[in-house]
Amino acid sequence: MPQHIVIIGAVALGPKAACRFKRLEPESSVTMIDQVKMISYGGCGIPYFLSGDVSDPAQLQATSFNMLRDEEFFEKAKYVRVLTGVKALSIDREKRSVLVRHLETREQETLPYDKLVIATGSIPNRLPVPGADLNGAFTVANMEDAIKIREQIAGGKVEKAVVVGAGAIGLEVAEALADLWGIETSVVEIRDQILPGIVSPIMAGMAQHHMEENGITFHLSEQVREITGRDRVSGVITDRRTIDADLVIMAAGVRPNAGLARAAGLEISPRGAIVINEKMQTSDPLIYAGGDCVEVTNLVTGRPAYYPLGSMANRQGRVIGTNLAGGEARFEGAVGSFIMKLFDISVASAGLCLASAEHEGFQAVSGFMAQLDHAHFYPEKDIMYLEMVVDKENGRVLGIQGLGNKGEGMMARISAVATTLKYRPTVADISNMEIPYSPPFSSAMDVLNALGNTMENILAKKNRVIDADQFADWWEKRDDGRTFFLDCRGWGNAETFVKKFPDHWKSIPQDELKDRIEEVPKDKRIVLICNTGVRSYEAQVFLDHVGIRDTYNLQGGMAAVKKWGLEL
Amino acid sequence: MPQHIVIIGAVALGPKAACRFKRLEPESSVTMIDQVKMISYGGCGIPYFLSGDVSDPAQLQATSFNMLRDEEFFEKAKYVRVLTGVKALSIDREKRSVLVRHLETREQETLPYDKLVIATGSIPNRLPVPGADLNGAFTVANMEDAIKIREQIAGGKVEKAVVVGAGAIGLEVAEALADLWGIETSVVEIRDQILPGIVSPIMAGMAQHHMEENGITFHLSEQVREITGRDRVSGVITDRRTIDADLVIMAAGVRPNAGLARAAGLEISPRGAIVINEKMQTSDPLIYAGGDCVEVTNLVTGRPAYYPLGSMANRQGRVIGTNLAGGEARFEGAVGSFIMKLFDISVASAGLCLASAEHEGFQAVSGFMAQLDHAHFYPEKDIMYLEMVVDKENGRVLGIQGLGNKGEGMMARISAVATTLKYRPTVADISNMEIPYSPPFSSAMDVLNALGNTMENILAKKNRVIDADQFADWWEKRDDGRTFFLDCRGWGNAETFVKKFPDHWKSIPQDELKDRIEEVPKDKRIVLICNTGVRSYEAQVFLDHVGIRDTYNLQGGMAAVKKWGLEL
Repeated sequence: MPQHIVIIGAVALGPKAACRFKRLEPESSVTMIDQVKMISYGGCGIPYFLSGDVSDPAQLQATSFNMLRDEEFFEKAKYVRVLTGVKALSIDREKRSVLVRHLETREQETLPYDKLVIATGSIPNRLPVPGADLNGAFTVANMEDAIKIREQIAGGKVEKAVVVGAGAIGLEVAEALADLWGIETSVVEIRDQILPGIVSPIMAGMAQHHMEENGITFHLSEQVREITGRDRVSGVITDRRTIDADLVIMAAGVRPNAGLARAAGLEISPRGAIVINEKMQTSDPLIYAGGDCVEVTNLVTGRPAYYPLGSMANRQGRVIGTNLAGGEARFEGAVGSFIMKLFDISVASAGLCLASAEHEGFQAVSGFMAQLDHAHFYPEKDIMYLEMVVDKENGRVLGIQGLGNKGEGMMARISAVATTLKYRPTVADISNMEIPYSPPFSSAMDVLNALGNTMENILAKKNRVIDADQFADWWEKRDDGRTFFLDCRGWGNAETFVKKFPDHWKSIPQDELKDRIEEVPKDKRIVLICNTGVRSYEAQVFLDHVGIRDTYNLQGGMAAVKKWGLEL
Repeated sequence: MPQHIVIIGAVALGPKAACRFKRLEPESSVTMIDQVKMISYGGCGIPYFLSGDVSDPAQLQATSFNMLRDEEFFEKAKYVRVLTGVKALSIDREKRSVLVRHLETREQETLPYDKLVIATGSIPNRLPVPGADLNGAFTVANMEDAIKIREQIAGGKVEKAVVVGAGAIGLEVAEALADLWGIETSVVEIRDQILPGIVSPIMAGMAQHHMEENGITFHLSEQVREITGRDRVSGVITDRRTIDADLVIMAAGVRPNAGLARAAGLEISPRGAIVINEKMQTSDPLIYAGGDCVEVTNLVTGRPAYYPLGSMANRQGRVIGTNLAGGEARFEGAVGSFIMKLFDISVASAGLCLASAEHEGFQAVSGFMAQLDHAHFYPEKDIMYLEMVVDKENGRVLGIQGLGNKGEGMMARISAVATTLKYRPTVADISNMEIPYSPPFSSAMDVLNALGNTMENILAKKNRVIDADQFADWWEKRDDGRTFFLDCRGWGNAETFVKKFPDHWKSIPQDELKDRIEEVPKDKRIVLICNTGVRSYEAQVFLDHVGIRDTYNLQGGMAAVKKWGLEL
């Protein structure tokens, strides 16, 4: 029997659910409403619209074949009725209807439904400080904001900008402002690293260093107290400084927009998100919800998690569309696959970083690998950095993070692990993971396999590592004489350092270690150093063998140290 | 108790096993022998050495930190004794010893072992035709051959070359000869497509077309009868033609080099490979084997399969090294992840292609998807083609193949599926696969997810498809009046074709189909056409809805047709 579906929200999930449903049940009807006029756009493209990479907002609203996804498009090509400028006021679950208001005419209307879809998305967090509503202070959650921001930039009004929040959106916006428009851009972050909860402090430090090299200034562990200005913003006051600014972008995260669902008595999680089952039904089985207003299961922890991601919304929309038509599609949950471009590098992750894993109660440990992305003899290649988080108790892989060049090689390694995380792989699965190999693409022992191998050695306590930050600390205190810095590379690599630091930097190439073992002190902790951490590991194994065990392998080697921003 | 290990073969697996073992058991000893002088080189780099991308053979033998992996390197840096120019003659399993001959001195020696590793690799198939031993006729299985080939090329002796065999190695060599050296190159293949057993005929056709555009000539379904010449090759005679050639490369596959194992009474498979268990032990538990001389389990079929791949050998080598030291490492098997660069494109696969799946007895079906690799609004993007093979009975994914630009985006999609194949994913797992999303890397509904969605619709018989070759056939016979070619794109795309073929090409944009339904004939089969197959699918759904069901969606659309080489 034909049914009528009402969908509240027409950006990502709503349209997907509507179109899928109509393809499965052409005889049924769909009404999709949204309070704004511009619907069905790619919100993740906003930073690229701000930068100018995308010249016209209409491009974000177009299909891949350049048709504008407006009301007429949905009517003619998708047979879906769309009402824009229409706000949902309340849901009457008993009568199965939604009360709406036409914003222009102020008229109210009641839309009856057989099934309802809530796709109300998220609300960006505005800073709870004076001045957050000033002209020139923006969130970047929708196209209206984005268009205003770009007007101000293009109008020449912006010389200095402050971005508040060093999550993905904040960093993408910072790049857009600095790179394409030459705006002097600072990022203020309340936590002590960028991308908190996504990558480790070391990897965050590498990404930050790269952005600093590209002109971005960072203020970490600082809280914004006030946005100053009269008619429009003139600056930002933090707990440590004052920064001049003509533009302030608040990228302080988003929260589920679940007010309508809450008022209708649907189950809401402690985080404030709509609770759904695997079929994407709310606590009322006639009402579905998905996208940024719901929680889903984190497939690593098994616990609810919040992933406000456009890709997730699209996939969930299709699941809802199928189920509206009586299907049995499931959305099991997610592991939070993530990638972003920052100037010339990519940063990516899936599953838990070490801090998140510990926060979730895992006895976790992480391992780090630096290796060329392609065969070392292939002309084009670059060092890729991968980090892996593992449950110490059983070797289960909890997450992976990476940093490399802006090519798609990073996506390959993260995808390979991300898609298997729900199957609970162990370290051995990573060691044997079957990344396709050919010299222009990967290595015979790929960096991902090498990461697995390293992790095995770390778990077996054969590879005992330190990171760049620990190295920096011990190096800074080198005059205390407690640490012996042993460079295991060939003389060609070590020479500069030995000449510069003759009292502190010792060169014994790994292949000479056996013959020169008497040069290694037995009363100091020994930091073993090479380019990426492989030869220094070999040295550690040999030193163990001869009974010298107070050794620390600098994982990622000098490559990681340099990428992290430490120049000796 | 310290043990002594003998390893026969020192190219890929042998060194890996030796070094891993020595790191785990420094007190034990290893002797590794090889009959050739140049050991531990990256054999997959040979095509890049032939092309000149890799200038010096030593680069293939170097570590990533530029140390030559010769006997001295293994002695000094890895504590492994290496004997080169030493051939293993026989294995005495009772006495636990290997009889070897020093090839220079002709002296024999008996090497006792506690455990033995057989890493004898593969033997390239020489064509069983007259002239196969002529000067100028080569296989490309080892560096000795490669160096000779390059000497002849660099010496200006080669103007025309014939490559026999259109598998991965043959095509890589053909590219090297044509692209870097400007040699007029033909490829002769006995099967009716290139990359047989790896990708579908359609995808093979696309790759072939691309190589033809880059100057390679192909002769498919042709068998070489003779290689002609007196002192050196002058040509190739097939069952259909004579081709002039100064150089003939036989890339007709390899077979396991298992003679030594067979003579020692170890279990050998019908294919002639050494049989091993998951710990990589042969039928004699003191003897391990791996790499190109063994079979492993195909994780899709559960049956033995032969994967002569350098990456596999490396990973297996580590498993053997661990187990030699009393560990419990397993090599479960493989799915045959594969990728290659061909001029400006990449071709990749994992698991079974349709023909292989049918050959293995599956009731299989395949689906095809063409979509932009990045967000359609992002400035840099390219169409990616993916194909997926599924068991009709249960929707289980059996394999994936792809063709795209030469970036690493293809590796990302193939890796994502390849690493999950052993967990027996279904189509729904692909639809929901969590590829990391950001506009410079992927789409909100990634091409891989879209492939899963399409496959669901194909299995549900809602999407009824034809490929470019069927389209070409019906198009060629268009004057028979049986087929109605309906272009569902906007007029801007359709116009050229309508004007060129006014009697055969009909334009009704998908969003006008409802209003112009009377223009669609009910007595012909209808081929639905758009750019990539998405709007034409929408049209098919609508035509179903109004009772017009003899319709065929051209999957991959005009993009696939063009890539395949058909210009209308």
